[in-house]
Amino acid sequence: MGKNTLLYEGKAKRLFKTDDSNILRVEYLDQATALNGIRKDTVKGKAELNNEITVLIFEHLKKKGLQNHLIKIVSKHEQLVEALDIIPLEVVIRNVSAGSFAKRLEIPEGRPLAFPILEFYYKDDPLDDPFINDDHVKILEIATNQEIEFIKQKAHQINLILIDLFETIGIRLIDFKIEFGRRGDGTILLADEITPDTCRLWDKQTNEHLDKDVYRRNLGDIVPVYQEVLERLEQALH
Amino acid sequence: MGKNTLLYEGKAKRLFKTDDSNILRVEYLDQATALNGIRKDTVKGKAELNNEITVLIFEHLKKKGLQNHLIKIVSKHEQLVEALDIIPLEVVIRNVSAGSFAKRLEIPEGRPLAFPILEFYYKDDPLDDPFINDDHVKILEIATNQEIEFIKQKAHQINLILIDLFETIGIRLIDFKIEFGRRGDGTILLADEITPDTCRLWDKQTNEHLDKDVYRRNLGDIVPVYQEVLERLEQALH
Repeated sequence: MGKNTLLYEGKAKRLFKTDDSNILRVEYLDQATALNGIRKDTVKGKAELNNEITVLIFEHLKKKGLQNHLIKIVSKHEQLVEALDIIPLEVVIRNVSAGSFAKRLEIPEGRPLAFPILEFYYKDDPLDDPFINDDHVKILEIATNQEIEFIKQKAHQINLILIDLFETIGIRLIDFKIEFGRRGDGTILLADEITPDTCRLWDKQTNEHLDKDVYRRNLGDIVPVYQEVLERLEQALH
Repeated sequence: MGKNTLLYEGKAKRLFKTDDSNILRVEYLDQATALNGIRKDTVKGKAELNNEITVLIFEHLKKKGLQNHLIKIVSKHEQLVEALDIIPLEVVIRNVSAGSFAKRLEIPEGRPLAFPILEFYYKDDPLDDPFINDDHVKILEIATNQEIEFIKQKAHQINLILIDLFETIGIRLIDFKIEFGRRGDGTILLADEITPDTCRLWDKQTNEHLDKDVYRRNLGDIVPVYQEVLERLEQALH
């Protein structure tokens, strides 16, 4: 495979090789999906918004001492990241009951949780990303005990940084999903993205959804909503 | 409520008060159910078999130092047990892939697992007993961290004793479900039952199902199958 070879096409971005085998180029797409990809729409402007939002957040995390894969933004809808071996785990942290959690356990959406809870989902499209526990993570050889503890600790650390960040811009961080990857030497670090596609963000004053639930639940156009999140982040971080 | 008041009617047994507030009478029923009670049949003889099987197993566990709620058998289909506050958790241990686990993770039924894995399900019929993780157990205030660790340790200990017991009677213990209860002083001990209703038991030679899967999967009459398990246990334990 030469440089610029497409390595992977996800639901909202593409990954390409570069001249440097340690570096990948991520291209964000003007695409929104729901129901594990069954619903799919073109959303003009989304790529740029998510690319810029995730860069702002990953740069902020780096400033706070939280290592991650981001190298730099290279165009409106592209960024360079470290080439990692992605761990097939969706790591979800929940501060407030919402979504599938609220439904499965009948804890009303919007109820604050006494402590942030963590969930693992096995990233496997044919299996529909099943919810799994620590024993499953180990039996599937996704991660060792030690790695699981490291990932949990990092996820909770990221949660605290993000809660603070969104708090300053009038947003409640309800929950979010992150992914991690391994370097050749086994070091684990934050990868993928943190955007309104992967977080539930509610306006602190109005409880308005400032995230993909606007799309999932047909509440309107997501572009102005994501734009709002980006503008608030730019004000706080520049 | 006077003595002999019905306290609880489950899918395959009834719980009654006795003269002594610390003691309950369990009456096993000639009933088999599947799909969380949606399918339900009368199975003549099942009550006696399960009552006798669970008594043999709980007595064996006690001999091995594993505390549990059993006091004594009082009739063919009845036993006395300590009155406990049941913890609403189904604790599942799996030694071999089978059932929902095999389906959810596409690990072929019958494949031995590298180590026994433990799962928690929230005992809640309206919610359909959802699979949950440790954080959910805590957030739902089902058990504390310390109690979770105690329950896991006991479950694994029970697994080792049961594997040995069934091994001596030519049976592979594939998986099983147990429940725990609390005494007034907070002590936690094994409660409920251990029977072919709550275990997957495969004949070591033939891989034949010697458990409720015979009913769940319409493989034939369960009475001779449960009878077979009882007879083998009696031979080993008397």
